[in-house]
Amino acid sequence: MDEPGFTSLADARVGIVGLGLMGGSLALALAGANACREIIGVETDSAARTFALQQGFIHRTADFDSALADSDLLILATPVRAIISQLNHLANLSLAQPPVGDVSRLTLLDLGSTKSAIVAAMKDLPEHFDPIGGHPMCGKEVSGIAQADAGLFRGKTFVLTPLERTSPKALALAHELISAIGAVPLLLDAETHDAYAAAISHLPYAISIALMQTALASGGEAMWQMAASGFRDTTRLAASDLTMMTDILLTNRAAVLGALARFRAELEALTAAISSGDPATLRAALESAQSKRSEMFK
Amino acid sequence: MDEPGFTSLADARVGIVGLGLMGGSLALALAGANACREIIGVETDSAARTFALQQGFIHRTADFDSALADSDLLILATPVRAIISQLNHLANLSLAQPPVGDVSRLTLLDLGSTKSAIVAAMKDLPEHFDPIGGHPMCGKEVSGIAQADAGLFRGKTFVLTPLERTSPKALALAHELISAIGAVPLLLDAETHDAYAAAISHLPYAISIALMQTALASGGEAMWQMAASGFRDTTRLAASDLTMMTDILLTNRAAVLGALARFRAELEALTAAISSGDPATLRAALESAQSKRSEMFK
Repeated sequence: MDEPGFTSLADARVGIVGLGLMGGSLALALAGANACREIIGVETDSAARTFALQQGFIHRTADFDSALADSDLLILATPVRAIISQLNHLANLSLAQPPVGDVSRLTLLDLGSTKSAIVAAMKDLPEHFDPIGGHPMCGKEVSGIAQADAGLFRGKTFVLTPLERTSPKALALAHELISAIGAVPLLLDAETHDAYAAAISHLPYAISIALMQTALASGGEAMWQMAASGFRDTTRLAASDLTMMTDILLTNRAAVLGALARFRAELEALTAAISSGDPATLRAALESAQSKRSEMFK
Repeated sequence: MDEPGFTSLADARVGIVGLGLMGGSLALALAGANACREIIGVETDSAARTFALQQGFIHRTADFDSALADSDLLILATPVRAIISQLNHLANLSLAQPPVGDVSRLTLLDLGSTKSAIVAAMKDLPEHFDPIGGHPMCGKEVSGIAQADAGLFRGKTFVLTPLERTSPKALALAHELISAIGAVPLLLDAETHDAYAAAISHLPYAISIALMQTALASGGEAMWQMAASGFRDTTRLAASDLTMMTDILLTNRAAVLGALARFRAELEALTAAISSGDPATLRAALESAQSKRSEMFK
């Protein structure tokens, strides 16, 4: 028997909490595809709210609790620690005001960049919530709704980290959403997501910051005139939003520290090969990374 | 009194040794601008020679010694250690066959990525050579003449490292060449160039290799599906040509090892900030790199 209220994304009222680059791009992609019944935006910044309304990203704005009451699918699109606060708020709110009567379960999806801490908080939600973790793999080093892009998710991997309690209906709805915005689903458990994200996203960010710091301490104006596309690309992530990245590093600390330790070992091996001064040794130390990278992104 | 033979780039016969990405792009840029009297290509790879001739990058091909005899400006555009071999060959050749009569001095420019070792070899050349070091700051992670691009140098910094023995005429000719290809000259001594290049080019390369190695050891297919533009950009340099990069690391070893040591110290400080788990400490550790990077490349 279907639960009441909605049966598919097309019938769903979708609340999006946080109209930054991610939430704004999602609203725009859903609005552009006419993919759902209503899009309700929750955002503390009034300029972002106005922009989203004027540009037609959302149908209306609401505060968090009203959006919660009016949505069939609530999407948390703020930085990770804000998502965790929202989940704690939901748990407390529900304890104080248990749902009355035969209400639908609310599907709850988040777009946070780390998943273990969020999924742990989701586990503690009252049972009328139907939560699932999500993470679209499509960053930009810029932030804010003015940078929103309906095509941001197209062709990109969208990780889903379902919980044991996640219903088939919530999983199907998440798949429908991913399909509507042109992304490609990838199912992982939260711990695996976080370990992989540490290696291919959080470690590159940390390295990019340390590289920028090293250069800042190394030379003056003439050095910066020499900086070309290689330096620009290798440090691009250092420009990422500070709140987002602080939250990521704090909520994925163990995996990031592990990745940093493995990176340090690789860097020491490479340093030894450079120190050796032997062309064959050095070339051998560079070769596997070169061939894999050349083959990966053509 | 002007020396005989030529007075400006427009009158000069230009020999280019090495028709890879750099030499090929330079030939194409000079040919497109009709900037000199003749362009003579020296290249051991017959396919590259044929391509350069057929595409009109060069007027004719020659072997090294013939190009030497026929050029007013000889440009060495191979990897660094090959340039050093060519300079040693010039020194020996000239000892065996000293020039007869009142010949012009041959202007010799190189495009090598490190400058101290090259400039040291240039110092030892017989006095009928008029050498100057050069390094256009415009890499690509691809190599070969098929990737040549007449616009490669446009708007890019082109470092010149004159020697004490470099004549005003050679310096003026190098400036003319830089202007003809749309680049921006920057005069530095060879040691300063190498220290700066270590920080903004060779260190980013080493990091990019170590990051790629770390990821290769970290996860399988699903992890690679998660790799997005951040990973792609941070590892782009790892795809660079192996011979070029081996030569760079070998001939700028001390500066690269110094930059690696400074980077390691920065990374340790950042690791400590992540370990602390304190949001304010962590944010402070990220902030200066974030603001400088955001301001640098808009």
